[in-house]
Amino acid sequence: MDTSGKAITCRAAIAWATNSPLSIEEVQVEPPKAGEVRIKMLSTGICGTDEHVLKGELLMKFPLIPGHEGAGIVESVGNGVTSVEPGDKVLTLIIPQCRECSSCLNPQGNCCEKQDILPCTGLMVDGTSRFTFKGKRIYHSFRTSTWTEYTVVPEFAVAKIDAAAPMDKVCLISCELPTGYGAAVNSGKVTPGSTCVIFGLGGVGSAIIMGCKASGASRIIGVDINEEKFPKARELGVTDCLNPQKLKKPVQDVVVEMTGAGVDFAFEAIGLTDTMIAAWNSCHKSYGVCLIVGLAPAQTQLSLDAPVIVTGRTLKGVCLGDYKTRDCIPQLVTDYLQKKINIDPVITHQLPFDKLHEALELFHAGKTIRCVLLFQGQK
Amino acid sequence: MDTSGKAITCRAAIAWATNSPLSIEEVQVEPPKAGEVRIKMLSTGICGTDEHVLKGELLMKFPLIPGHEGAGIVESVGNGVTSVEPGDKVLTLIIPQCRECSSCLNPQGNCCEKQDILPCTGLMVDGTSRFTFKGKRIYHSFRTSTWTEYTVVPEFAVAKIDAAAPMDKVCLISCELPTGYGAAVNSGKVTPGSTCVIFGLGGVGSAIIMGCKASGASRIIGVDINEEKFPKARELGVTDCLNPQKLKKPVQDVVVEMTGAGVDFAFEAIGLTDTMIAAWNSCHKSYGVCLIVGLAPAQTQLSLDAPVIVTGRTLKGVCLGDYKTRDCIPQLVTDYLQKKINIDPVITHQLPFDKLHEALELFHAGKTIRCVLLFQGQK
Repeated sequence: MDTSGKAITCRAAIAWATNSPLSIEEVQVEPPKAGEVRIKMLSTGICGTDEHVLKGELLMKFPLIPGHEGAGIVESVGNGVTSVEPGDKVLTLIIPQCRECSSCLNPQGNCCEKQDILPCTGLMVDGTSRFTFKGKRIYHSFRTSTWTEYTVVPEFAVAKIDAAAPMDKVCLISCELPTGYGAAVNSGKVTPGSTCVIFGLGGVGSAIIMGCKASGASRIIGVDINEEKFPKARELGVTDCLNPQKLKKPVQDVVVEMTGAGVDFAFEAIGLTDTMIAAWNSCHKSYGVCLIVGLAPAQTQLSLDAPVIVTGRTLKGVCLGDYKTRDCIPQLVTDYLQKKINIDPVITHQLPFDKLHEALELFHAGKTIRCVLLFQGQK
Repeated sequence: MDTSGKAITCRAAIAWATNSPLSIEEVQVEPPKAGEVRIKMLSTGICGTDEHVLKGELLMKFPLIPGHEGAGIVESVGNGVTSVEPGDKVLTLIIPQCRECSSCLNPQGNCCEKQDILPCTGLMVDGTSRFTFKGKRIYHSFRTSTWTEYTVVPEFAVAKIDAAAPMDKVCLISCELPTGYGAAVNSGKVTPGSTCVIFGLGGVGSAIIMGCKASGASRIIGVDINEEKFPKARELGVTDCLNPQKLKKPVQDVVVEMTGAGVDFAFEAIGLTDTMIAAWNSCHKSYGVCLIVGLAPAQTQLSLDAPVIVTGRTLKGVCLGDYKTRDCIPQLVTDYLQKKINIDPVITHQLPFDKLHEALELFHAGKTIRCVLLFQGQK
């Protein structure tokens, strides 16, 4: 049945308000307008940033359809769309690449001004939504909204990927893998023989471990209060695991002692200011580089001892691994197909979309590294 | 008269307490112990960091002999000193290079662990002072103390320079020039065609302008509340001057508007957290680099909006331009002699050491870019 040009009725997860149960409902998904792409979702991840959304830490508008880490097939395209066509395998991009803004035009920039995170409107570029439930508007999250059988995304937030990509897995290459792996290999440029510490050993933290390992780091210290994360972290390359709740001193002091005078590279992959400060203070005061990968809650402040800044450390925010997303993410999928990068170890669970609540329970209980939700039609 | 091995009586400036008048007194300067060098000073600068000392912002011990930006001739050396000998022209180094600590051994590090700034003991490495006044111990500042006819400095804080160096000027190459110029060309690696903003147009700020200009920056915005600094700043390469006290909006908002979306490189050369935050917020949110060159007062905090860090900006502390001082500073003197760098325009005043109080008055009144104090024997 040709659905192009028509609204599609399908099932989607709706978050009605912050800190409230989601429900899976039948929604109407309008056809893509000019410059937009409607995608039949095949898989989606559950990312810490989605959790920030659900907890109300990002000043989003509700009700909304969550999710940003998605893989699917183009169902139809709006006027003027040239980079993808129906049938293409694609990933959704929380950080788009419009190729026109100051970030996109600068060789060093990647945080496209068309992103809808800080601030977030919950709407498409024209100020409207493509989702309704019983006639009531439902907001988008990050202009991606992947916890739905169909979504509409701006063309600039869609990356066409290799037709051979296994769609039950590669959704992670839309966000988790490049965010973490890129933080190490691209943003931090971790050096062979260096010492690293990673705060948070979930999905992004795991990808950071992989990046540090691939870069030849000699010591990779993993920090998490959930020790169930430790075996996987060790499998991926962590050499030392620390649980701050079981230490007699602040974890940053322990890291500095373990490494003599502080690490070369510290990564924060949680999104809390306390762990950001711990990461900063774990760094060598002269040449340490602290990479902030986690997104801190709205209206929080990161407070650093001012006089010691001048001793030389670097604090760098990492936006999706500093990759220009449409240019670089398809190559990461190809690298995965060519076995240069392996995302399989971080996919600890795969569940049908219907089992979203079970997946969220596993996520909240700290049982998953990454749980991928699979939609009907995904083989 | 051979003075080696004997105490020397000479004139030195003593700061008796914070925020109190200095006096020039006759002090005793002991011979250098093992690993130390006694220097007959020929010239010294008055730097903002000395002012921080005098105002009590650095938790120093008083009474002390201030000053760190010095040029002189080696009078005698202690046991084991091999890199300099009596008669050598040298600069004193507020950031030493011991070549043994974790900073010195790392290719990226330069904030030698033997520095005596954060924290500062006011004493030589063996825990004693080489200065007395009427039998009472006088503390060193930064193990350099250059506002004196003779000083004693650890060998690792002494750089031997070209015998042709004009000693009435090159004291600035011990701190001001490398701190500012290096922040631009070495720490920030300012790119051709880039946009820059510099907070503070004193000596270090002027050297930053020179570095930005030499790097081919297309727009250099200078910010200062003292408009008397503007003509010199324009002469050195600033394209736009801003006085925050005369703007209707916060200066960072004006800088962002002037540049479209924020500068490529922002420099803070004052040492105040408010201007550090203004510099950070003047940067492009995705690819801007904020270089903290000024030393903030003790026990102050730099508080940044946490969520927007992740959009990609970089905050980097700059310690003496990230130069490994003994390795690199002699070359900067040679570069000056070969007219590759010109420090002459920033030397607005030269006064005899006796006129220290007049020099400090000019400094406080904002009349100087750099005032060099000249000692007897300086031709």
